[in-house]
Amino acid sequence: MGGVLSARFIQYGLGPIGVEVAALALRRGHQLVAAVDIDPAKAGKPVGALLATAPPGVIVASRAGDVVNTGADVVLHCTQSLLAQVLPQLLPLVDAGLSVISTCEELAFPWHHFPAKAAELDSLARSRGAVVVGLGVNPGFVMDLLPVVLTAPCSDVRGVVVERIVDVAGRRLPLQRKVGVGLTTDAFRAGVKGGTIGHVGLPQSVAMIAHGLARPLERIEESIDPVVGSNARVLGLHQISRGFLDATPFITLDITMAMGADHPCDRITIDATPPIHAIIEGGLQGDLATYAIVVNAIGTVLASPPGLLTALQLPALSLSRHGPAPSVKMPGPRAKTS
Amino acid sequence: MGGVLSARFIQYGLGPIGVEVAALALRRGHQLVAAVDIDPAKAGKPVGALLATAPPGVIVASRAGDVVNTGADVVLHCTQSLLAQVLPQLLPLVDAGLSVISTCEELAFPWHHFPAKAAELDSLARSRGAVVVGLGVNPGFVMDLLPVVLTAPCSDVRGVVVERIVDVAGRRLPLQRKVGVGLTTDAFRAGVKGGTIGHVGLPQSVAMIAHGLARPLERIEESIDPVVGSNARVLGLHQISRGFLDATPFITLDITMAMGADHPCDRITIDATPPIHAIIEGGLQGDLATYAIVVNAIGTVLASPPGLLTALQLPALSLSRHGPAPSVKMPGPRAKTS
Repeated sequence: MGGVLSARFIQYGLGPIGVEVAALALRRGHQLVAAVDIDPAKAGKPVGALLATAPPGVIVASRAGDVVNTGADVVLHCTQSLLAQVLPQLLPLVDAGLSVISTCEELAFPWHHFPAKAAELDSLARSRGAVVVGLGVNPGFVMDLLPVVLTAPCSDVRGVVVERIVDVAGRRLPLQRKVGVGLTTDAFRAGVKGGTIGHVGLPQSVAMIAHGLARPLERIEESIDPVVGSNARVLGLHQISRGFLDATPFITLDITMAMGADHPCDRITIDATPPIHAIIEGGLQGDLATYAIVVNAIGTVLASPPGLLTALQLPALSLSRHGPAPSVKMPGPRAKTS
Repeated sequence: MGGVLSARFIQYGLGPIGVEVAALALRRGHQLVAAVDIDPAKAGKPVGALLATAPPGVIVASRAGDVVNTGADVVLHCTQSLLAQVLPQLLPLVDAGLSVISTCEELAFPWHHFPAKAAELDSLARSRGAVVVGLGVNPGFVMDLLPVVLTAPCSDVRGVVVERIVDVAGRRLPLQRKVGVGLTTDAFRAGVKGGTIGHVGLPQSVAMIAHGLARPLERIEESIDPVVGSNARVLGLHQISRGFLDATPFITLDITMAMGADHPCDRITIDATPPIHAIIEGGLQGDLATYAIVVNAIGTVLASPPGLLTALQLPALSLSRHGPAPSVKMPGPRAKTS
């Protein structure tokens, strides 16, 4: 394991995603020094009760304030989807100088929809020497970063379409609930209105692509409709987010997440010179991919300059640095001297 | 065009690739301030004779020494494939403090095969405040950078296989010659031995992936075989380069470039958790893609710290920044403070 980074991490959030992220980080040789969960059923218990491979002696804290002085290098933050929900959780961590990798969907690219909050968090992070970044597979990779990377060999990009089809059968229950499985269409519509139904982060992905391509959008629109089965019950959702340069959409992100959805895949189509038609067959398994993206990024994030970053700003390759240091004596990722 | 970078560039090499790179750079608003070509049939003539959109008054120089004081920001260098061929061309440019983007295949990742030359070039570039980088679609993107990016959501990468099938019918003659079209198999074998037949850069791509994944290879092997048609004439080549961690290959790059090759595509298979099966249908058109990668990278390269870089070190997204500056007030790509 010579040369492998071993970071001291705090696991913040011990739900289905948080537990798996922490387990992968431990398996990679990182050290869990503290854990936080606001759930009273978890707080106060040994983290080993939730995570078999956790070191003994780490007790789940209920507040960030209890863990900021544990000498951690980074917080792996896996709680909620909305920026407004997670900001109160992040601010004390960042204020204490801790770097944070979060799976909060809206944090993946908050600059468009929440410019003031993003600037505030960025400013605090810079002043405390901390890095904050929202990462994950969607948003954060398959419907935003990857399409942007795929435009690297293109000139005259006239449009970007990403279609993602996910079969949620066999996936975790919270995901099935989030897409409305089993509801009536009325309850689905009410859930969309109330914010309990829908994939969070699609407009952020639109904004991230537009930023990556340096094409300022006029507006972003979103629709969420039910996919209905033969028994009139909802099987899942069909959600579309579009970014307009003028009257016509420049970016279209189209996601179907439903029980038994046919031909799961991720399809990226770039209308450009040359055109790009890329497919990930079977689609990228969202949960597994998110665990890996978060843990792969630890080294890159700790080597990054302070501030609120996005996946677009991390050298994309470095997400994958998860082995021992290479033998080739090449200078590492280089810094701008700005 | 407000906010668009307009760089002053020197076009070095006015062959089929160089002319198209320069034409795209001009179309993007960059300014051609000088041109170099060692071909006596080109040197001394107005560049407009080779490139319709070139500004009047630029005469093709035969030596780099004649153009280094033209106030250029960057040199777009499109001449030869081997590092030993291009180093004497690059050194005077870098010594004069000029940044260089080159399509030289072996420059895409010279650190493994030519560590001393790479270190020398890196050291000179750093001391002169210049950036040097080898870019292109292959090597440089489709068989190396893109597979590395696709491992970002993976843990436990056990192997990477990239297959590229290119139908060279209708492509430029030098490319057809390089893959042996029309030769006898004996002449093909002799050409491979003599270095005139074969795709240059495949072992560099293997080394780049290994570096991106931080997996030091034990050895890299390469084979080049003819694809033979029904009349016993060569239709093209089938070339494989493998990187070994131990007895079994960890990286396999398999390229077929032949007249009428069936089902052109780029296929990236990553044996990992989760596994990745990605396809670019039809395959990425190599020449068009190379023009775009080079020109898209101008802004990123000029904003990078000095030294010999690789595509792995440029924030992958920034390759695509070819429009006006975005309206979102987000801090730009951030620097490490190393």
